[in-house]
Amino acid sequence: MIKRLGAEFIGTFWLVLGGCGSAVLAANFGGDGNPLGIGFLGVAFAFGLTVLTGAYALGHISGGHFNPAVSFGLWAGGRFPARDLALYIVAQVLGGLFAGFILWQIASGSAAFAPDPAAAGNFASNGYGGLSPGGYSVAAAFLCEVVMTAMFLVIIMGATHSRAPVGFAPIAIGLGLTLIHLISIPVTNTSVNPARSTGVALFAGSGAISQLWLFWLAPILGGLLGGMLYRWLGPERPDVVGGA
Amino acid sequence: MIKRLGAEFIGTFWLVLGGCGSAVLAANFGGDGNPLGIGFLGVAFAFGLTVLTGAYALGHISGGHFNPAVSFGLWAGGRFPARDLALYIVAQVLGGLFAGFILWQIASGSAAFAPDPAAAGNFASNGYGGLSPGGYSVAAAFLCEVVMTAMFLVIIMGATHSRAPVGFAPIAIGLGLTLIHLISIPVTNTSVNPARSTGVALFAGSGAISQLWLFWLAPILGGLLGGMLYRWLGPERPDVVGGA
Amino acid sequence: MIKRLGAEFIGTFWLVLGGCGSAVLAANFGGDGNPLGIGFLGVAFAFGLTVLTGAYALGHISGGHFNPAVSFGLWAGGRFPARDLALYIVAQVLGGLFAGFILWQIASGSAAFAPDPAAAGNFASNGYGGLSPGGYSVAAAFLCEVVMTAMFLVIIMGATHSRAPVGFAPIAIGLGLTLIHLISIPVTNTSVNPARSTGVALFAGSGAISQLWLFWLAPILGGLLGGMLYRWLGPERPDVVGGA
Amino acid sequence: MIKRLGAEFIGTFWLVLGGCGSAVLAANFGGDGNPLGIGFLGVAFAFGLTVLTGAYALGHISGGHFNPAVSFGLWAGGRFPARDLALYIVAQVLGGLFAGFILWQIASGSAAFAPDPAAAGNFASNGYGGLSPGGYSVAAAFLCEVVMTAMFLVIIMGATHSRAPVGFAPIAIGLGLTLIHLISIPVTNTSVNPARSTGVALFAGSGAISQLWLFWLAPILGGLLGGMLYRWLGPERPDVVGGA
Repeated sequence: MIKRLGAEFIGTFWLVLGGCGSAVLAANFGGDGNPLGIGFLGVAFAFGLTVLTGAYALGHISGGHFNPAVSFGLWAGGRFPARDLALYIVAQVLGGLFAGFILWQIASGSAAFAPDPAAAGNFASNGYGGLSPGGYSVAAAFLCEVVMTAMFLVIIMGATHSRAPVGFAPIAIGLGLTLIHLISIPVTNTSVNPARSTGVALFAGSGAISQLWLFWLAPILGGLLGGMLYRWLGPERPDVVGGA
Repeated sequence: MIKRLGAEFIGTFWLVLGGCGSAVLAANFGGDGNPLGIGFLGVAFAFGLTVLTGAYALGHISGGHFNPAVSFGLWAGGRFPARDLALYIVAQVLGGLFAGFILWQIASGSAAFAPDPAAAGNFASNGYGGLSPGGYSVAAAFLCEVVMTAMFLVIIMGATHSRAPVGFAPIAIGLGLTLIHLISIPVTNTSVNPARSTGVALFAGSGAISQLWLFWLAPILGGLLGGMLYRWLGPERPDVVGGA
Repeated sequence: MIKRLGAEFIGTFWLVLGGCGSAVLAANFGGDGNPLGIGFLGVAFAFGLTVLTGAYALGHISGGHFNPAVSFGLWAGGRFPARDLALYIVAQVLGGLFAGFILWQIASGSAAFAPDPAAAGNFASNGYGGLSPGGYSVAAAFLCEVVMTAMFLVIIMGATHSRAPVGFAPIAIGLGLTLIHLISIPVTNTSVNPARSTGVALFAGSGAISQLWLFWLAPILGGLLGGMLYRWLGPERPDVVGGA
Repeated sequence: MIKRLGAEFIGTFWLVLGGCGSAVLAANFGGDGNPLGIGFLGVAFAFGLTVLTGAYALGHISGGHFNPAVSFGLWAGGRFPARDLALYIVAQVLGGLFAGFILWQIASGSAAFAPDPAAAGNFASNGYGGLSPGGYSVAAAFLCEVVMTAMFLVIIMGATHSRAPVGFAPIAIGLGLTLIHLISIPVTNTSVNPARSTGVALFAGSGAISQLWLFWLAPILGGLLGGMLYRWLGPERPDVVGGA
């Protein structure tokens, strides 16, 4: 179990460092109007590629969840045992927090680093209302996070199903997370992952922390719905992911 | 059959929510000149990734059409039985409409949401003439939709052929849809899929609805041509997709 | 043989329509400064995805060359019989020309279509000196086309070698063409394919036609070098591609 | 052994020519504000695709390291014999230098080519402090290169592990390098590869040369850490990569 938790810690560390790191360091390089920066498109690829690479590298150790909403959803889908939920989630949150710490060390090495706890997307944090990149309401943010996480779990459950092509699941799941970011960065800066939200919120400041409840509640609710939805759709020959 | 229709409903819902959602919410984030938005390149990837992820997750349930023109084309290619056409198309259109509804709920959560039924590409709708993003004529739009859908079917028929490498079809088909968008968003905002056009047209308003005929006629005609073309090219050992 | 030539015709048609089509219709959408256009990055993905999709769909019929320099290089590498060279190249050039014709029909459906035979990159044509997008000399253009095509053949020969992972070659080859475009669009608008250059040059006008010699000579020379280089590197168990 | 060294030479040549070539020739095409250039996002894809294509084409000959830090890391992970380290690294550095030479020949074919040894990122060189694209300190640069290379080795070790899906490693490793560039181009212009840094530094001038020590020390240190970390995580059934 210690190696499985180590893999979840490292994978979630990589997800938050890579995804949030690309957003903090590279998305808006040179300021508004400079096309050298990678923009939301680059950030979307970065998040997805953290999961694609992490799942190929570590998936055979821990199942490659890297996300409490995924662990809950796989439990709802009959693929993950309830007794492992708490330890997985602790490892994931600790990995996210360590990524936030390392990212802060790197980012603060530039004189241009100017975090602003009152700004939307500060230190890649998630938010709604005044802290949504596009100013989306709490209701829109909640709906968006629930639907996106539910579809994320449908992709995960389906692509790892025994009838799906073998070996391709990390591509489908990683690029699925890219897709989710292409849609929803303007709405909430995209969470679908409480560990990712928590990992940077503690560094982003009071605004992000006060809104953190939504980025635990909505993704986990969506994950449960998606896991149950796929269980109805394709229940034949379920496999427990992660060899628990 | 109910699960196959459920998979077509969910897959088409995801195609329209993801593809059109990225266009409505993220393509032009921050207004013209802001390079943070994902642009047509990001929208092209979003459409393609909805199909890549949907096909890996749901393809083993329904065959992963998510598109009436694909169902017609696979029928013309000898891969899909005529008796299932009507139910598949109903499920696809309903999934597209539900996506349009959910997308409207999310988009209207921002004060900046300002749909304009007289504008090209309003709410990600397809159009020609005055409603084409680049002002392309109805003849150019028709030709473009026919050719693009025909090549889409050639890709689908070929990549799922028994002599093609096993398991890679969702990559070829999904990224094929990305490619089609890279070419043709300026012409018609890219349909090649009547369910996608219908799903947003009913919300986009009278202009999009009045031009909807072309986005049923041209894609289905192209799909039939592509299905027959590939049937001539590579007819050995045909497989019925979707396990009908 | 007629079906193999049909597959080469369709595949080269798709390569030129998709790659050059994305450049003509979508690269600079809305004019300079508008970030909605797909830019050189989008064109690079479009070219690569035409080959990725064409190779999965048609590779099992014809071997999926779609390019005279590839056919010459595979001959030099011992993978393709000399007796099939002429017919393959005729099919490829005709497919490229048909794509140029269809693309002209679509592009001219917009009032904004303003081809200029004296402009670099006109109608996606290849060029050097005054017709190079970045004003590169004929020597730099020649060197660049030779090196890029040679490496393209190394990728093709290696990824289809019997010791390489089965089924992945279209991904490596297609994304290899994307990579080549990411490097060299500014130099020559990137050819590495005489059929692609010819397919649009006849429509682009006298400038492009007068420089067409380089985009036959340099890619074929590079293809021969690359084929021979890989033959030295990894000669074990050669397979004839295309089932000749 | 001569063919394995030839494959490492060609693969590292391709990595530096493709990655640095895209940066020098295409990243900022047309000057600041022109969205046609491929930006950091395009450069990130170019670097990753050199490794993806090189690993599919040449990986079955040499193991596809193309990077001294990878060779060191695989040695630390128990996958590569110490006796081959020196020859591999010589071949890699020579390949990188040859790429720098060829790239200079192509780049200098444009009148707009204006290298400036005092500018950050000159001729795609790596740097810190005043030579960091975003002005990051030497400490931030060192930390970033160590962490990125360590995670690169975790991806390489994990994706080539006998329990990982067969054949997908070049995708995970190549797109992992893309991800690393999406995060860290602003910090150091991204090395994680001493041969890549050396290949262009000798042409970029005195500034880049004086900082070259960091881009040998930090990547090799990170590679060793990553190799040892994965060895602890997933040590079962180790395979020597490259058939040494």
